Amino acid sequence: MTCNFSIEPLDSEVGSGLGVALQARLDGRTKPPGSLGKLEALALKVGLIQQTVTPQLRAPRIAVFAGDHGAANAGVSAFPQAVTVQMVANFLAGGAAINVLARQAGLAMSVVDAGVASVCHAPPRASAEVEFIDAKVAPGTANFIEYAAMTATQCNAAIATGAELVRNWHAAGCNAIGFGEMGIGNTASASLITHALADVPLAEVIGRGTGLDDAGLARKRELLGKAVARVAGRSLSPLDVLAEFGGFEIAMMTGAYLAAAELRMLVVVDGFITNAALLVAHGFEPAVLDYCVFSHCSAEPGHRRQMTYLGVEPLLELDLRLGEGTGAALAFPVIRSALALMNEMAGFADAGVSGKVGGES
Amino acid sequence: MTCNFSIEPLDSEVGSGLGVALQARLDGRTKPPGSLGKLEALALKVGLIQQTVTPQLRAPRIAVFAGDHGAANAGVSAFPQAVTVQMVANFLAGGAAINVLARQAGLAMSVVDAGVASVCHAPPRASAEVEFIDAKVAPGTANFIEYAAMTATQCNAAIATGAELVRNWHAAGCNAIGFGEMGIGNTASASLITHALADVPLAEVIGRGTGLDDAGLARKRELLGKAVARVAGRSLSPLDVLAEFGGFEIAMMTGAYLAAAELRMLVVVDGFITNAALLVAHGFEPAVLDYCVFSHCSAEPGHRRQMTYLGVEPLLELDLRLGEGTGAALAFPVIRSALALMNEMAGFADAGVSGKVGGES
Repeated sequence: MTCNFSIEPLDSEVGSGLGVALQARLDGRTKPPGSLGKLEALALKVGLIQQTVTPQLRAPRIAVFAGDHGAANAGVSAFPQAVTVQMVANFLAGGAAINVLARQAGLAMSVVDAGVASVCHAPPRASAEVEFIDAKVAPGTANFIEYAAMTATQCNAAIATGAELVRNWHAAGCNAIGFGEMGIGNTASASLITHALADVPLAEVIGRGTGLDDAGLARKRELLGKAVARVAGRSLSPLDVLAEFGGFEIAMMTGAYLAAAELRMLVVVDGFITNAALLVAHGFEPAVLDYCVFSHCSAEPGHRRQMTYLGVEPLLELDLRLGEGTGAALAFPVIRSALALMNEMAGFADAGVSGKVGGES
Repeated sequence: MTCNFSIEPLDSEVGSGLGVALQARLDGRTKPPGSLGKLEALALKVGLIQQTVTPQLRAPRIAVFAGDHGAANAGVSAFPQAVTVQMVANFLAGGAAINVLARQAGLAMSVVDAGVASVCHAPPRASAEVEFIDAKVAPGTANFIEYAAMTATQCNAAIATGAELVRNWHAAGCNAIGFGEMGIGNTASASLITHALADVPLAEVIGRGTGLDDAGLARKRELLGKAVARVAGRSLSPLDVLAEFGGFEIAMMTGAYLAAAELRMLVVVDGFITNAALLVAHGFEPAVLDYCVFSHCSAEPGHRRQMTYLGVEPLLELDLRLGEGTGAALAFPVIRSALALMNEMAGFADAGVSGKVGGES
């Protein structure tokens, strides 16, 4: 079993010397205490993660994991399975939404073939900005409606690979990362994982994905009901749930989260599918959450249920439902701004600004 | 009366040829239709404002208007009045929150003395990045608890100056602007304006401002009740409300909003006080809203009431309550990203990506 990660919880550090120093630094900036709201909590959190009163993002990166799902051809998605490999080519050409948002936010970008059904080819005009990593475990998972999606060996291999990739990016200087995904059928996979691990009724975590109509949604519900019935009566560990219902891209992200938290990296969490991978990681090691910022709440209904289960709140609510890491990329400028406020604002005394009437400063 | 602005409503343009072309362009990008949520609505809106399918921000700017309020010394704020001029110096030195956020977002920044009680001096180490404009109408308003805050002549002069400043920035190439403010006591002023123009009970629009305690809040409620009683029985036009309760910074922003909309600039609206100025502008010309994006909802309770009255929704909810234009500055990167998605994403055919199963593309 590869899930052996040592993650230091941050809870105890809020009241530590560093936690007090960070709060004092925030309160000493030229603004009413607390008036920067969630940005202050963000700066404090990243300070605790990085163990410094001057936290900074270094070589921040978006890593998009792509994988295919055997269930895709059974009718759980509005798009054909071929779109997965086509979108990988689009990522490599620089034309997808995540490419645009990563450029806007100044993020390096990697695309990982975790298990796409066909061979990923770089397009004729590949973008020099995007790193491609061939880490294919297998050409797509088995159809989880009828069989386990992957073997335990495949599942462990995917987790280990995700962890190794993060260790490599960290070794190259990255201290903040967001994960994204591409895989036709993977909202269905995420629904099953969320149902199993977050104790939510199946019907409440099944959405329209990339755009099913009413008939398509009814069919998705029926099919996922069959998948759940297939494992009825068994007690499933988080690893079992991942192997039964996951995708290779989801398993790789599970390992990636755990390794990033172990390395004290800031992890910016994207949408419903990336959160399903986090649910598995959380099942192994709850402290992984201490290193996560939740970028946004998507329009896919299960996403909010996941966040409620984890007891966390999103930074943004923009009704996104695209995946790819788009929400994470949009949150990076907000996080960078929170840290810049902490590091660059003047203090009351330095700026010659008076404090509150009858107040303490 | 200076409030003579010609603002073209955009409502009719949504179904126009351009509106249809913008929607088609969004739907043709490599993503499920609508999956970029509020970012798609943003891109479409800016396209209509700029009359192009390739909208762009040019020379975007934050303009911070500063003014003092006679009521400040009556006890409506947690901070002494001197903080207004001290914060102007902090803006000019580059050390305030808005300086940091404007730098992060790549925004030019102007600070306007609309009516600070004392002389604004540039600090020894003034930032070369910040433009200072001395447009002082008078050294602070009269105490609106007992008297009209300003004369009709002063009010009209402030509106005209705000409009003129925006025309100058536009002439220099700016097509997108956010307004911010600084003025000890101006949440009280904004509460009175909101009560008068948005038909909200006074108690529901009075908050803690920069940080009043319970006793301070009770005192603020009592004082503002007196101000309202002072004009009881009179029927007040938007201009009357502005002159009775406003500040010079608020009146200047009123003119600035109207001129910006007249020039078809994108206006990024900040928090409670800047929204109070917008309520006045809206009272003159409701179409001003068509050019506004609402950056955030602040923790000051009256802000949400204003937005409900105007029928608009915020882009971000970060529990900010600082003013200065900080929320507007944080929204600019999101807007810039929305436009970049529209302009830079590949189309389905170009990228070789399949559309929906059985779908139209």
